[in-house]
Amino acid sequence: MILDETIIALATPSGAGAIAVIRLSGPKAIEMAATHFKSVSGKNLSEQKTHTIHLGHIVDNNRIIDEVLVSIFKNPNSYTGEDVIEISCHGSLYIQQEIIQLFLKKGCKMANAGEFTLRAFLNGKLDLSQAEAVADLIASENEASHQIAMQQMRGGFSNEIAMLREELLNFASLIELELDFSEEDVEFADRSQFKILLERIEQVLKRLIDSFAVGNVIKNGIPVAIVGEPNVGKSTLLNALLNEERAIVSEIAGTTRDTVEDEITIGGMGFRFIDTAGIRETKDVVESIGIKKTFEKIEQAQVVIYLFDGSTAKAKLDDVAIELAKIRNKYPQKPLITIANKIDVLTDTELAEINKTIPDVLLLSAKTGFGVEQLTNKLLTMINSGALRNNETIVTNTRHYDALLKALEEILKVRHGLESGLSGDLMAIDIRQALYYFGEITGQVSNDELLGNIFANFCIGK
Amino acid sequence: MILDETIIALATPSGAGAIAVIRLSGPKAIEMAATHFKSVSGKNLSEQKTHTIHLGHIVDNNRIIDEVLVSIFKNPNSYTGEDVIEISCHGSLYIQQEIIQLFLKKGCKMANAGEFTLRAFLNGKLDLSQAEAVADLIASENEASHQIAMQQMRGGFSNEIAMLREELLNFASLIELELDFSEEDVEFADRSQFKILLERIEQVLKRLIDSFAVGNVIKNGIPVAIVGEPNVGKSTLLNALLNEERAIVSEIAGTTRDTVEDEITIGGMGFRFIDTAGIRETKDVVESIGIKKTFEKIEQAQVVIYLFDGSTAKAKLDDVAIELAKIRNKYPQKPLITIANKIDVLTDTELAEINKTIPDVLLLSAKTGFGVEQLTNKLLTMINSGALRNNETIVTNTRHYDALLKALEEILKVRHGLESGLSGDLMAIDIRQALYYFGEITGQVSNDELLGNIFANFCIGK
Repeated sequence: MILDETIIALATPSGAGAIAVIRLSGPKAIEMAATHFKSVSGKNLSEQKTHTIHLGHIVDNNRIIDEVLVSIFKNPNSYTGEDVIEISCHGSLYIQQEIIQLFLKKGCKMANAGEFTLRAFLNGKLDLSQAEAVADLIASENEASHQIAMQQMRGGFSNEIAMLREELLNFASLIELELDFSEEDVEFADRSQFKILLERIEQVLKRLIDSFAVGNVIKNGIPVAIVGEPNVGKSTLLNALLNEERAIVSEIAGTTRDTVEDEITIGGMGFRFIDTAGIRETKDVVESIGIKKTFEKIEQAQVVIYLFDGSTAKAKLDDVAIELAKIRNKYPQKPLITIANKIDVLTDTELAEINKTIPDVLLLSAKTGFGVEQLTNKLLTMINSGALRNNETIVTNTRHYDALLKALEEILKVRHGLESGLSGDLMAIDIRQALYYFGEITGQVSNDELLGNIFANFCIGK
Repeated sequence: MILDETIIALATPSGAGAIAVIRLSGPKAIEMAATHFKSVSGKNLSEQKTHTIHLGHIVDNNRIIDEVLVSIFKNPNSYTGEDVIEISCHGSLYIQQEIIQLFLKKGCKMANAGEFTLRAFLNGKLDLSQAEAVADLIASENEASHQIAMQQMRGGFSNEIAMLREELLNFASLIELELDFSEEDVEFADRSQFKILLERIEQVLKRLIDSFAVGNVIKNGIPVAIVGEPNVGKSTLLNALLNEERAIVSEIAGTTRDTVEDEITIGGMGFRFIDTAGIRETKDVVESIGIKKTFEKIEQAQVVIYLFDGSTAKAKLDDVAIELAKIRNKYPQKPLITIANKIDVLTDTELAEINKTIPDVLLLSAKTGFGVEQLTNKLLTMINSGALRNNETIVTNTRHYDALLKALEEILKVRHGLESGLSGDLMAIDIRQALYYFGEITGQVSNDELLGNIFANFCIGK
């Protein structure tokens, strides 16, 4: 971790755009920029105030590379806590390369992935879980994951952990103090108070650990299994769901995202649609394998959609009913939505027949859009997003989840020791271990390997 | 052209990166940003100075969308000449969309392609040819095209035109003044002076028009025809050329550009390699079509490379010599490089044989890299880049080229009229027409259609 180097990287996405931003951070950032910047008004960059912007040219000796805007952020009032320069240049890849090369030649180091945020952490601008939230924020693709990342970045989650750690640390100190007076058999730490604290910590840890299931689902999208044979209109349905959402953003040219196939945002929540074949199909021949796979996928899903083609279902309605019964029997708790698609071509008699045979069926036409809104409403109400709405703390990070599990284990050990009258010195070891795992979340305890793993997941330039 | 609207667009490339920049421009830019920006230090954005940066949150009522940096540029000291706000937010697509949508809801208009630069032009920050250079600059992919765009953006080209236009305008005024005194038969405009001016203009126009051939080649890449049968190692050669250049930029992660197949930058110049079959191949059968196509491509090229496989050429060396003779006969002026590839597997005797049979052959091994540098040197010396090195003005824009041609036509008419003693009123019409074409280049003469065509080629956000 060498902080006396000045690092550089492209901060905006790679590719051609109107402008690109190149970022320098480190003790020589301002000096280096000043050497290669000619202000249009003749100002010297080194003498300018923090948080100011200057128009001029980036030059290499007499060669003008580009007309740019340079922003100055002075230590400690910058993202990294160091001196930071941001160069806003024209978006040509050639220009970006030329400017970065110029500074590399002059002794800048190419920033590693996440190195700017790593420095922010090392300089105390962010704790570790906040730094991790930055990466989540950049990766957030829908309202729910964005909200969780924002909350975490603002410290909601790590504040709670840090406070508990503080209290636990106090007790640990008292118990360790007792050890110094062990021959006198005194008790500085009130055991009943300590028990109450341990119970409180246990509750918080359990709540946070439980929230991981929700958090994980929100971060990675809510898995929805679609059970349905080919040609029942699955992809038309997904497109219809997608289009309803797209309409909102369609006027923003240039921001349309490349949708991952079958991953759709509905009402701010990410949904991951998992395609499965029908159950019936495999009834006759190879049997087990296909059915097993379908059931496996249903198992992974939070919601099951059973989709059938209403227009050709006439003769098959009984089969549909049988399949539905199978799913309900096997997964009585799993939310199930039954959809008859292509109902636009049906007569009233046929519709009545479907309604009679299949209870709670949702009549839909992916083609005309009829019923699509009803479906999205149903999907949203089926998701337990209560926690999210109530602004509760939600754990989404596997590393935090692991640390919380380990901390809980230690806390339970401490409690057990307390109840069985374990000696103070042995108890102190367990408490120290619990404190260690708390610290790992916020970064009060860290090592190079841990930091390396975390920041390697960042993008370059952040 | 409504300038009382406030426009918004993403200024950085679409996609996920560390940060993204969203730009607002127009009379309400600062007011709108101030409404949705909560400074961390409680400052009111509207009261801040130009060219300052502020840390805070973009909020929609109580919902925090992102922690951002907001830069303020006050009219007229901005790119567009209007009030401009730049919001530097986290690079998530979701966040970009949320922020843009927020301002669209509040009455911002989504910027059209090039609308920021169009406003800069309409507000007199740039002339038209400078505005066009901005688009060229963003699209520049190599040193040569970058240098030309920079030169044009700094006004080099349009200054020259504007000065000539000024002088011509003076004469036009004098001649038109004579018309007012037509009954008195006076001559305010010195005809011999005028003739000298016309000759000077003619020379400048011809030089600029001639430069278009070079400019066009530089802008679009220098066409190089590679004549060679399949499997002689053409793509290995192109990769070898590419790698030699790539080595320079390889340490810049995230900026590697998607190379257009067979388009390679060598020594700052873009080369466009055109694949052609050998000539011999078509000798026997369908004959004419293939040969004709090959010759067509050679015709388009500035340089011809004849590539053959040195390791299997033994028996075919005479054929190679015949093909080379054909090309030399047909295009005696076209620079031709003959390359024997795969020479790493040859014995000295075989090499001597090749050297004897094929004069001026370049011995190369794309696999080991032997001879590649010699080839790049040869390619570069064959290109007439003298004009570029001497910092001469080069025309690259087809629109300018057309206007220059038309202006020249009018100037020749005027000169002819002058020599044949044409009456002042008729001559004045031709001069006005020439002035019109001059003005079209710099934008002193413009109309909505012209502007629409020019700025439609820009990217969104510039």
